[in-house]
Amino acid sequence: MSVISCKAAVAWAAGEPLVIEEVELSPPRPMEIRIKVFCTSLCRSDVTAWLSQAQPQIYPRIFGHEASGIVESVGEGVTEFEEGDHVLTLFTGECMRCRQCASGKSNICQVLGLERQGVMHSDKQTRFSIRGKPIYHYCAVSSFSEYTVVHSGCAVKISSVAPLEKICLLSCGVAAGLGAAWKVANISEGSTVVIFGLGTVGLSVAQGAKLRGASRIIGVDTNPEKSERGKDFGVTDFLNPKEYDQPIHQVINRITDGGADYAFECVGDTGMINTALQSCCSGWGLTVTLGVPKEKPEIAAHYGLFLTGRTLTGSLFGGWKPKSDLPSLVDMYLRKEIKIDDYITHNLMLEDINEAFDLMREGKCLRCVIQMPM
Amino acid sequence: MSVISCKAAVAWAAGEPLVIEEVELSPPRPMEIRIKVFCTSLCRSDVTAWLSQAQPQIYPRIFGHEASGIVESVGEGVTEFEEGDHVLTLFTGECMRCRQCASGKSNICQVLGLERQGVMHSDKQTRFSIRGKPIYHYCAVSSFSEYTVVHSGCAVKISSVAPLEKICLLSCGVAAGLGAAWKVANISEGSTVVIFGLGTVGLSVAQGAKLRGASRIIGVDTNPEKSERGKDFGVTDFLNPKEYDQPIHQVINRITDGGADYAFECVGDTGMINTALQSCCSGWGLTVTLGVPKEKPEIAAHYGLFLTGRTLTGSLFGGWKPKSDLPSLVDMYLRKEIKIDDYITHNLMLEDINEAFDLMREGKCLRCVIQMPM
Repeated sequence: MSVISCKAAVAWAAGEPLVIEEVELSPPRPMEIRIKVFCTSLCRSDVTAWLSQAQPQIYPRIFGHEASGIVESVGEGVTEFEEGDHVLTLFTGECMRCRQCASGKSNICQVLGLERQGVMHSDKQTRFSIRGKPIYHYCAVSSFSEYTVVHSGCAVKISSVAPLEKICLLSCGVAAGLGAAWKVANISEGSTVVIFGLGTVGLSVAQGAKLRGASRIIGVDTNPEKSERGKDFGVTDFLNPKEYDQPIHQVINRITDGGADYAFECVGDTGMINTALQSCCSGWGLTVTLGVPKEKPEIAAHYGLFLTGRTLTGSLFGGWKPKSDLPSLVDMYLRKEIKIDDYITHNLMLEDINEAFDLMREGKCLRCVIQMPM
Repeated sequence: MSVISCKAAVAWAAGEPLVIEEVELSPPRPMEIRIKVFCTSLCRSDVTAWLSQAQPQIYPRIFGHEASGIVESVGEGVTEFEEGDHVLTLFTGECMRCRQCASGKSNICQVLGLERQGVMHSDKQTRFSIRGKPIYHYCAVSSFSEYTVVHSGCAVKISSVAPLEKICLLSCGVAAGLGAAWKVANISEGSTVVIFGLGTVGLSVAQGAKLRGASRIIGVDTNPEKSERGKDFGVTDFLNPKEYDQPIHQVINRITDGGADYAFECVGDTGMINTALQSCCSGWGLTVTLGVPKEKPEIAAHYGLFLTGRTLTGSLFGGWKPKSDLPSLVDMYLRKEIKIDDYITHNLMLEDINEAFDLMREGKCLRCVIQMPM
């Protein structure tokens, strides 16, 4: 195994257009694997992180965390993967051994969880470089590159017959929404659900709610085009807050006779979490927050909402234990039990990645799948 | 049935000492009962409400909501009670018919829930008066009086062999804590629990946690006398935040290797809810808020606490459906499966009720049971 030279989309500074560069990628170190990225889709979190001015010191940087690929080589000690395996990358890994992984009731791995410093979990170093200068990672995945190196706990082997250009969406967005509906909220048949934000994650919550037999799925979005889109995924009532003089939670309380059973915040706006709590019913109303806030990380809500029986919980990657649970989601897709293709509104080549960023910022796409050069 | 004249402790204005007055009490109206109060214990919420300047218009007022008594007469349509029945009053009632009551999963009755305007649920009028002037109620109970009138859904018949001077504590505080531990959090054996505030409610959470087999029960209070007191109810580790330079959640995280499984906020301080969330572990940490805030009703917490798997829920009266569930708690007490007597630190006569308020404000009592004149 030797250093690879490959093309990657490098962000030289926060918010500046990515540049396709020839970069160097080290071989995998112990317990790591090197992956030939097949497809990577753009998630709103990539854009949020790229726009954030909070960590100027970890540039240049390669974003991307929702990807499929094929194992190119494996590092020392890796027995779980071999060259040629089809994989999905995991932005939050699973070590299988820490208190959280071992508990059987959590996917918040203490060893391979969300990496926020732009380096690899194991040695706090980067694997990418350009002209001798380190290039930082994103979530220890960095899939906007022809090749990448990830910890073997941050990838999962999946069926080799699954179409890599579709199932990359299970690496983050679609799985996150389905899991929030199924594993975190555990939506019951006949219930009423309200979803704030009808992007890929919100529409995946809708798909999950529909498959659970929710009788009413209310989608809330300020983009009127989401009205039609929502129907494809099970949304029964579309509400655009701009069309009402009343606060939207009052509208929801009125049409649901006292609030929904479940509310999902998929916008990434902490203010909306309060609205979600106010939109679900007293007694048993459950609000699930999935979004990564673009600003203001503090949630503020009146204590009375809780004292009268509402609950707020969070969902990271839909509560899925990523290595344990993702293969079965891929299999569900192959059996046509869940849909993924309909979230793909655009396909672009890596060289056009800035266009994907524009589409996402302008709310014009759900998922844009980015293919690597052949 | 006619108007009764009786002694009651009247609050003429917020925060002003109560005055024992001769008041008039109407007969029970349809679906109401008139009760001869036997004992009423003082709860922190009485003091909080009395100190609040928020509702000057609903004075004069009779506080008190944690009480036992004997039915004196019943209004039209009441078939559930008869003269002589032993009862506990319910500050949050149960109509058995609304969406919440009928759901079987909530105790937040929409018809007879917390009454905040100082009147009776049914006709928004008062039953008490003095020299022709209405005296307002508190939580539609107003037990600081020899007699009171409550809706028949705001009282529950209990075993006539239970000592009324003890089991009045099940009317609010002790039941609220036990229920938070059992019904709301559903504490599992071997778990770690942290309780903020070791008043009657917090110590009842401790009793509940111990009975569930929690392996570690950490009590947090700024009153050093609560260290010894806590032991009586199962507290295994006492922490006084004043004795640490570090924020107390850091101390808790250190001694529990990453946070408790359950955290209970029993102080009535919304700032403490954030501390509770920070003190429970990622993945599955559950924070239950029970306290009624003395000021600042907004909870503020970082979204990351939720995204990494923490949950915040509220507990009103421990999640007990009051009419359905309280008789069995009384029976548990009679079988010596739960203890109540140890929370009673003081006994006073109605005429000395201001002393009880002083003891509570100064943190010198757990429960002070107030007996009516014979």
